[in-house]
Amino acid sequence: MPSTSMQAIMKPAPAPGAELRQVPVPEIGPRDVLIRVRAASICGTDLHIYSWDRWAQRRLRPPLVFGHEFCGHVERIGDEVQGLKPGEFVSAEMHVSCGLCYQCRTGQSHICQYVRIIGIDADGCFAEFVKIPATNVWKIDPAIPVEYAAILDPLGNAVHTVLAGDIAGMSVAITGAGPIGLFSIAIAKACGGGPVFVTEPHPYRQKLAVKMGADHVIDPTSTDAVAEVLSHTSGTGVDVVLEMSGHPDALRQGFQMLRRGGRISLLGIPAKPLEIDLANDVIFKGAIVQGINGRRVFDTWYKMQALLKSGALKLDPLITDRMPLADFDRGIQMLLSGDASKILLYPNGSA
Amino acid sequence: MPSTSMQAIMKPAPAPGAELRQVPVPEIGPRDVLIRVRAASICGTDLHIYSWDRWAQRRLRPPLVFGHEFCGHVERIGDEVQGLKPGEFVSAEMHVSCGLCYQCRTGQSHICQYVRIIGIDADGCFAEFVKIPATNVWKIDPAIPVEYAAILDPLGNAVHTVLAGDIAGMSVAITGAGPIGLFSIAIAKACGGGPVFVTEPHPYRQKLAVKMGADHVIDPTSTDAVAEVLSHTSGTGVDVVLEMSGHPDALRQGFQMLRRGGRISLLGIPAKPLEIDLANDVIFKGAIVQGINGRRVFDTWYKMQALLKSGALKLDPLITDRMPLADFDRGIQMLLSGDASKILLYPNGSA
Amino acid sequence: MPSTSMQAIMKPAPAPGAELRQVPVPEIGPRDVLIRVRAASICGTDLHIYSWDRWAQRRLRPPLVFGHEFCGHVERIGDEVQGLKPGEFVSAEMHVSCGLCYQCRTGQSHICQYVRIIGIDADGCFAEFVKIPATNVWKIDPAIPVEYAAILDPLGNAVHTVLAGDIAGMSVAITGAGPIGLFSIAIAKACGGGPVFVTEPHPYRQKLAVKMGADHVIDPTSTDAVAEVLSHTSGTGVDVVLEMSGHPDALRQGFQMLRRGGRISLLGIPAKPLEIDLANDVIFKGAIVQGINGRRVFDTWYKMQALLKSGALKLDPLITDRMPLADFDRGIQMLLSGDASKILLYPNGSA
Amino acid sequence: MPSTSMQAIMKPAPAPGAELRQVPVPEIGPRDVLIRVRAASICGTDLHIYSWDRWAQRRLRPPLVFGHEFCGHVERIGDEVQGLKPGEFVSAEMHVSCGLCYQCRTGQSHICQYVRIIGIDADGCFAEFVKIPATNVWKIDPAIPVEYAAILDPLGNAVHTVLAGDIAGMSVAITGAGPIGLFSIAIAKACGGGPVFVTEPHPYRQKLAVKMGADHVIDPTSTDAVAEVLSHTSGTGVDVVLEMSGHPDALRQGFQMLRRGGRISLLGIPAKPLEIDLANDVIFKGAIVQGINGRRVFDTWYKMQALLKSGALKLDPLITDRMPLADFDRGIQMLLSGDASKILLYPNGSA
Repeated sequence: MPSTSMQAIMKPAPAPGAELRQVPVPEIGPRDVLIRVRAASICGTDLHIYSWDRWAQRRLRPPLVFGHEFCGHVERIGDEVQGLKPGEFVSAEMHVSCGLCYQCRTGQSHICQYVRIIGIDADGCFAEFVKIPATNVWKIDPAIPVEYAAILDPLGNAVHTVLAGDIAGMSVAITGAGPIGLFSIAIAKACGGGPVFVTEPHPYRQKLAVKMGADHVIDPTSTDAVAEVLSHTSGTGVDVVLEMSGHPDALRQGFQMLRRGGRISLLGIPAKPLEIDLANDVIFKGAIVQGINGRRVFDTWYKMQALLKSGALKLDPLITDRMPLADFDRGIQMLLSGDASKILLYPNGSA
Repeated sequence: MPSTSMQAIMKPAPAPGAELRQVPVPEIGPRDVLIRVRAASICGTDLHIYSWDRWAQRRLRPPLVFGHEFCGHVERIGDEVQGLKPGEFVSAEMHVSCGLCYQCRTGQSHICQYVRIIGIDADGCFAEFVKIPATNVWKIDPAIPVEYAAILDPLGNAVHTVLAGDIAGMSVAITGAGPIGLFSIAIAKACGGGPVFVTEPHPYRQKLAVKMGADHVIDPTSTDAVAEVLSHTSGTGVDVVLEMSGHPDALRQGFQMLRRGGRISLLGIPAKPLEIDLANDVIFKGAIVQGINGRRVFDTWYKMQALLKSGALKLDPLITDRMPLADFDRGIQMLLSGDASKILLYPNGSA
Repeated sequence: MPSTSMQAIMKPAPAPGAELRQVPVPEIGPRDVLIRVRAASICGTDLHIYSWDRWAQRRLRPPLVFGHEFCGHVERIGDEVQGLKPGEFVSAEMHVSCGLCYQCRTGQSHICQYVRIIGIDADGCFAEFVKIPATNVWKIDPAIPVEYAAILDPLGNAVHTVLAGDIAGMSVAITGAGPIGLFSIAIAKACGGGPVFVTEPHPYRQKLAVKMGADHVIDPTSTDAVAEVLSHTSGTGVDVVLEMSGHPDALRQGFQMLRRGGRISLLGIPAKPLEIDLANDVIFKGAIVQGINGRRVFDTWYKMQALLKSGALKLDPLITDRMPLADFDRGIQMLLSGDASKILLYPNGSA
Repeated sequence: MPSTSMQAIMKPAPAPGAELRQVPVPEIGPRDVLIRVRAASICGTDLHIYSWDRWAQRRLRPPLVFGHEFCGHVERIGDEVQGLKPGEFVSAEMHVSCGLCYQCRTGQSHICQYVRIIGIDADGCFAEFVKIPATNVWKIDPAIPVEYAAILDPLGNAVHTVLAGDIAGMSVAITGAGPIGLFSIAIAKACGGGPVFVTEPHPYRQKLAVKMGADHVIDPTSTDAVAEVLSHTSGTGVDVVLEMSGHPDALRQGFQMLRRGGRISLLGIPAKPLEIDLANDVIFKGAIVQGINGRRVFDTWYKMQALLKSGALKLDPLITDRMPLADFDRGIQMLLSGDASKILLYPNGSA
């Protein structure tokens, strides 16, 4: 007989921190699926939730189980669920779209006007079990390793960003080597992009950028990053900029190192409005600036699966630590120190 | 025997103003064409040159004949020119590209790294004759009226902007009803766009916007333009924003009235860098922001020609005045007052 | 109390013809909507079903109520239906997609691998009532006339075809002036396309093509259609060909009148495989050939709605007859004779 | 003092075969460049010329020096040539476009209406020297090996074909493993495509396909190629088909193994018109069929250069033989036997 309670990492009240608690296993409706979490991964967003910053204060309504990157096995399916059965190895798109707005009805549900995110707006995956609407569940190809399966959510952000325009045979600058920036290096290279320039001030991340295949890693605090990129591109600038930091300096440098007619895709979230020289950096340049949000559902997932199955993506260097769910606090501290990249949590034992 | 001198509007020295002078008729090289100007038109850029603002001070090297919008008849061709003969009715792409840079060699010569603009970097068309490289000359279809032929350059800016993405069956907001904004109304409607919202504070231009076919003309100084557009689009926002003013408020409103996943094309030039809320207005929105510069050579010209030949574009309301070249100063003053749109100058008599 | 039986046009058995019968009103499930049909329209596909040709024999499983073009009012909704209520004026996308295949999960449900079509694979709209899954229902904007609302399905085919690539400022050839070809004339013109050439042998349809705005109507049985189109396009050929006939000669002519690098979109269904000169007509030409199927769900519907609301589409000349549902046989005969275009049926009285 | 005559492989008269002759070194005009050929490569087209088949009889006007794949050093430049100087290592785009037609004026010069091909319509590169218009010359990055530099022309065909649509994260079928098909395997893999299926009946080429990285090599004479591809793609079919054979069976299989909504790019030239089931293989499928011709000038060249510089393309297995120019006949015989892929000729000694 299945247990009715489970361990979960909770934000119990509107304040900093989080707690390991015993909570009821979620009850599922007729079109939901209950998934036994095999491995979960900590996202930068989880740090915001933990730290209870201004964004978190405005968005979250505790109590909440958080976490939104994971893989696991189907435990139970609702009465009306088709195409899934207990035991299957799955992950999930955690953006739950409304299905009724303009975007949802035109194949752009990743930017649904009324999106709700599991792990932010509803109980998430830092727990033994998580409840997911069946249409959001993604079956994982058996060729894909468990550790990669746990990080499909952020890897999907990176795939979506890199492939939001042409990349093969193109020079690329990535500003910021957090996990998604690091993933993007590997993806850009695997998709024929290059040379790949990476700007990143943190030495630990610089090293990871090299491991992921970056051709030039630039410390923008000690080098003129724009001049460096221009000098390697005959003064023309790069074809593609992937902005992964949200940092004002990186953004400005990104715009300046972009060639005329190039594409700059923005994924990093600036903390507040910032000054842009639209005349010189966008208009005269004929630049294309793309806001990137989430992942295309499920277009990005299919492409990500194909890239993973081909063996083209070597992501192991980024999975820097593994620990039981109960050690969550330690994982958070490691990430806050900057000396870790992706950390996996195991709510049901055995890393 | 052809005359060797001609009348021209000159900026004789680095200072405000301009003068009507007698100057030599340009000598042409083996791949140039000499064109007898039939009609020229005053651009907003010419006002900057006349007023000698900061941009003009940095860019221009007087003495210079300015003016870059015109039509005329081929007077003489260089020895190596093919496909053109004296008497033909023509206009010209005034952006002279280098032919050697990355952009020129990949079909993007409109954003050439070393572009020179006739009328800004070389003597222009406010004169009886103008010299143009043969490959920049555009033959005008006989079905197109002379008055329209004189304004193909700014009309091309508008066609390039409107058609820089999908427009048919899409809602459109145009921020700013200067000449290019006004052209864009007609083009958007002729290409199946609509409803078309226009934001414009100046009453004279508001009236012209209505004449050009705008569905909703909004005075942003008295109405909440963003709220107005949202209320007419079920709260979703418009599919396309065409920014034609360069004004900080218009830009911010443009971003806010854009729907998630929509396109905002920027043609208006902001006077200086300005604050943008990239997180909310671009990234979470999944917006596409395009910098627009010049016109595609000659892709835009072919499309413009087809639109004009079909009779779909009624531009007469925008040609508000006609005068001899010698009355140039009067034309400038009318434009500076805001109570005119396109003014035609006739250097060789007979308006 | 609602009636439990209704009038419907049925194919009772696998044989030519159809009958008006009294049948039960459809029972709806929790996610279905029952719609009281206001007006329905006869499609060419219905002629195949009536005539019981080879395609119909292979595809249909009588008994079946057929018909798939209609508008009506919501009569009743299932328990789980959101966003719809009784009385609302609606039409519907009749292609019911599986929701689980690659195409459905990537925003291409219009080419679902397991699509079922209401009126072909399930009971359709030639009846007083029709049952539709709620997610397929489309609310009709009150600005759209009832008669147009009844023909959104085929109009959507035309919108999808015309807008499957650039059309503004482009020359267009439409081969075949059946209803969808005729719709396409109006759409292409409303979206800035032109000149529009139409090839059509039948005099009645030639006249309608002129009424819809065609610039050149060519009878390919008496004129060399390819030579005619080339002579009007400086020998270059047209930018876009929309193939609406499925006829081998029209197809071959369409390929030959296309310019190098142009687009040919195929909607008409050839009765059998046919010979194509791929080397000269596709490969050396750098042509883009598109197969067109159905309508994008609901991207095409939104664009169609905007085009109709703007008043840009004048479709009245195509609605050539109106009659009670019971006169169905007469309508079929008129269409078979070729002297009608769209015929509306009124199952609940009052044309 | 430079020599005035040189060795060249000629087609002296309209008949099968070719001869090594002493001919004058080409004289260059003011915008031409004379290039000393370092290495040339034999194309399938050269076999047609040698064999004097029907296509060759219609197209060529002997006497002619043929050959159009090569690299070399600038020997001399015309008076008006900019941006090139003697000694530079170069190759060239051998399609000389007119510069005046619609395609040339809209960035599509690779499908110029009046294209002339050096080595087919004018004397080519199977000689010590070849004359090329300066605007067609392409400087070779020093990081690229000489042997690769000699085959940029056919490699460009392959790059153009593979990158004519999305490829990253997509399954690919390549029908035909001649040199361009084999190049395409490497390019598709380097650009994130996969799995890559190759159909090819010839054992020698099957082996090369494996060396180039094909995931599945299928002999269509012994295996049901369509069934095989469907079985590996869950019955959905491949995202992309690259048709490289021109063979009727391969073409039909290509269409059948393509998924709904997929892209099929046609480069192989069928010898004559052939039957296509447009209804099932294109229209109902919503397929996109692209005719591919030449290479984009110079968009494809830039991308190819970037792919080569990154080291992503390993082409050595395809360069199966090297020989002096004088041994041309032996090279031709090897290619006709099918047991060679790319053969390099050295007109100025030292392979």
